[in-house]
Amino acid sequence: MMTIIKNPEIGEWPNLLARPALNTLQLATTVQAIMNEVKLNGDKAIAVFTQKYDGVLLQNTQVTQAEISNAENLITADLKKAIDTAIKNIYAFHHTQNIAEPIVETMPGVLCWRKSIAIQNVGLYIPGGTAPLFSTLLMLAIPAKIAACKNITICTPPDKNGKLHPAILYIAKVLNLTNIYKVGGVQAIAALAFGTITIKKVNKIFGPGNQYVTCAKQLVQQLGIAIDMPAGPSELAIFADETCVPAFVAADVLSQAEHGIDSQILVVASSNKIATAINDEITHQLKSTDRKEMAIEALKHSKCIVISDVQKAFDCLNEYAPEHLIIASNNAEMLQQYVYNAGSVFLGNYAAESAGDYASGTNHTLPTNGNAKAYSGVSLDSFYKKITYQKISKNGISALADTVINMANAEGLTAHANAIKIRLTHEG
Amino acid sequence: MMTIIKNPEIGEWPNLLARPALNTLQLATTVQAIMNEVKLNGDKAIAVFTQKYDGVLLQNTQVTQAEISNAENLITADLKKAIDTAIKNIYAFHHTQNIAEPIVETMPGVLCWRKSIAIQNVGLYIPGGTAPLFSTLLMLAIPAKIAACKNITICTPPDKNGKLHPAILYIAKVLNLTNIYKVGGVQAIAALAFGTITIKKVNKIFGPGNQYVTCAKQLVQQLGIAIDMPAGPSELAIFADETCVPAFVAADVLSQAEHGIDSQILVVASSNKIATAINDEITHQLKSTDRKEMAIEALKHSKCIVISDVQKAFDCLNEYAPEHLIIASNNAEMLQQYVYNAGSVFLGNYAAESAGDYASGTNHTLPTNGNAKAYSGVSLDSFYKKITYQKISKNGISALADTVINMANAEGLTAHANAIKIRLTHEG
Repeated sequence: MMTIIKNPEIGEWPNLLARPALNTLQLATTVQAIMNEVKLNGDKAIAVFTQKYDGVLLQNTQVTQAEISNAENLITADLKKAIDTAIKNIYAFHHTQNIAEPIVETMPGVLCWRKSIAIQNVGLYIPGGTAPLFSTLLMLAIPAKIAACKNITICTPPDKNGKLHPAILYIAKVLNLTNIYKVGGVQAIAALAFGTITIKKVNKIFGPGNQYVTCAKQLVQQLGIAIDMPAGPSELAIFADETCVPAFVAADVLSQAEHGIDSQILVVASSNKIATAINDEITHQLKSTDRKEMAIEALKHSKCIVISDVQKAFDCLNEYAPEHLIIASNNAEMLQQYVYNAGSVFLGNYAAESAGDYASGTNHTLPTNGNAKAYSGVSLDSFYKKITYQKISKNGISALADTVINMANAEGLTAHANAIKIRLTHEG
Repeated sequence: MMTIIKNPEIGEWPNLLARPALNTLQLATTVQAIMNEVKLNGDKAIAVFTQKYDGVLLQNTQVTQAEISNAENLITADLKKAIDTAIKNIYAFHHTQNIAEPIVETMPGVLCWRKSIAIQNVGLYIPGGTAPLFSTLLMLAIPAKIAACKNITICTPPDKNGKLHPAILYIAKVLNLTNIYKVGGVQAIAALAFGTITIKKVNKIFGPGNQYVTCAKQLVQQLGIAIDMPAGPSELAIFADETCVPAFVAADVLSQAEHGIDSQILVVASSNKIATAINDEITHQLKSTDRKEMAIEALKHSKCIVISDVQKAFDCLNEYAPEHLIIASNNAEMLQQYVYNAGSVFLGNYAAESAGDYASGTNHTLPTNGNAKAYSGVSLDSFYKKITYQKISKNGISALADTVINMANAEGLTAHANAIKIRLTHEG
């Protein structure tokens, strides 16, 4: 079902690996108009857009304590247990990212260190759409809670009845999230960026979204609101050698394909035989796939490239820089050394991407569209600023004096030099 | 010399703390035109712009090994020694940011971890202009070297004779930097973003610059090239209480003021007496300031706010979120607990900002314009991606299965559930 390309020349890679062009800025006029409206008319504008785009007129956008308390009765015990386990694992993994750094005495009397301090006001955007992605709320709210951000504001679109998925409300209860607003789309990003009477202005906005939301995030970034990362359609690349299990690879391909028709899938197989075996399994499993039509569309632009040389295979994968990379091989642990561009790496035949999407503990908010070459996924770090500190004694400034004075003078910044000199001569 | 504002109402703070509007995007047409030219005509376009803006026609933009070797003879032994000491301190501080994280077994057979992997291709922009900022090369190249970025490309404008400051070349020698190009301004950012025959395309661009360079960096960020952070004019805020040394505070104010007429200075003093004493010292020291005219212009829009309540004083400073914050007090160590928005904090009467600008060890590339609310300064992290990994055994996937399957089904993503189920039933 995937197009198989055998041993392409390296010169052909850029074309083979190219993502579809994302012209989010073409939407900029529409997006800018909504943002201006929200900036000007605040909550009133939001009510109008929610009626227009979500089909419901809301009196109150903030989720009530009663809604949150009631949610527990609306989901199954199994789902509650699953969410509890996922929270435990995600918490455990992100909590270890909290590592204190030592104080460094670079010269006698010159102490330097770094401290992680929470971003005070963060906005989490949780998309609605074809699937209610409550797992994204876990991935964003858990590190925000560990970092101890002062205000965690959540925006997510309501359904036609003005309701949210009870799993979102259950998570709110367990994680003690109180500022949840039934606002979606561009109007949510605008509310978080500018603030309204109801919704507090934030310093950084997190979360995935459609191309309108992505465009809105790009625009507010220019206005000084930080964003988690640039976003594009979800992606999966798989390295599959003769020790892979074609049925597992096919299942992973289909799990990616069901995300949407713009999902990106790349398999690099070590032989034509493996490539064919995977394709046969895809054909077989597709019969019982629920979101079959969507998957078929995604498969039309997915590719399986056959590259027998291992180094070359990983060169190709690094050039692609996928959001998710599965190394479907018994030798995954050895092969990971070849990887330098990826969002998250899954090692071995049992490491399904689904595991990381929901519950193994790693974050699923990851760089797409080749951004893994320079960006990391969301982590505890994303909710912190790392502030540097220095404490310098009188002896310390004496030790540093010649160095700073000589450099400042050479740069022509004599007042910089003077700020040191005066501390040597003047009695403080 | 600074305007003194006594005990303003909290409601007045936003106006008092407002930065001048930075309309970098107004320059977008000019900047976009240069970028398009470089994208289309590469090195040829760069030669034309270098002649136009830097006043020199260059045959070769790449710095030669001979130029690098020769630089050592062109600077004084004192400056060499100063640079060597600064390198040692900056290296020592940034090296400690290299902390391995533990592997977390979130469930039996489910291992998760994170690894820091260098961004492969980084571009460092070192501005020329009124002062040749070779110290910025130290602040960017040292962490890039510690991270072991594969390609470190440096662009910096030549002088009218086609030469670079020998200190830049000396640093290149000591740090073994070989890809240095005499290209400045927007054309440098475009070359790094698009690549030319001579200059390699990079994944992330670092470094300060004028408003044209800043605008170019914003534009390439939309094209998927990461940047270090949004930039604005340099800033210093000082908390000064009755234990400060007014002469030191005044010297720090003037060292900030000499940066340029757009430099931002805010002093928060605990009493009117302290505020007046600092102003008197500024008047006195200004007489012997070399870059006096520039400093006077910067002082015109600088402010000293008197706030006697310590908590309120730091609320005001946090609201401002300065690039640099000096706590000019004998109680600095205790007072630091109040700080949550700042780029870098200097504790005590002997901690001059100059020390951190050059040589104490901390990085001087820091968030300005209030961005310290959400952004950190440049650090070793800035040159890494943190990639997450998971290794899951057959037992591990069994342990996770119910959790993932229940959540995937609740999100309507049954192929995600199937990728787990097949691993339980099918013999791998």
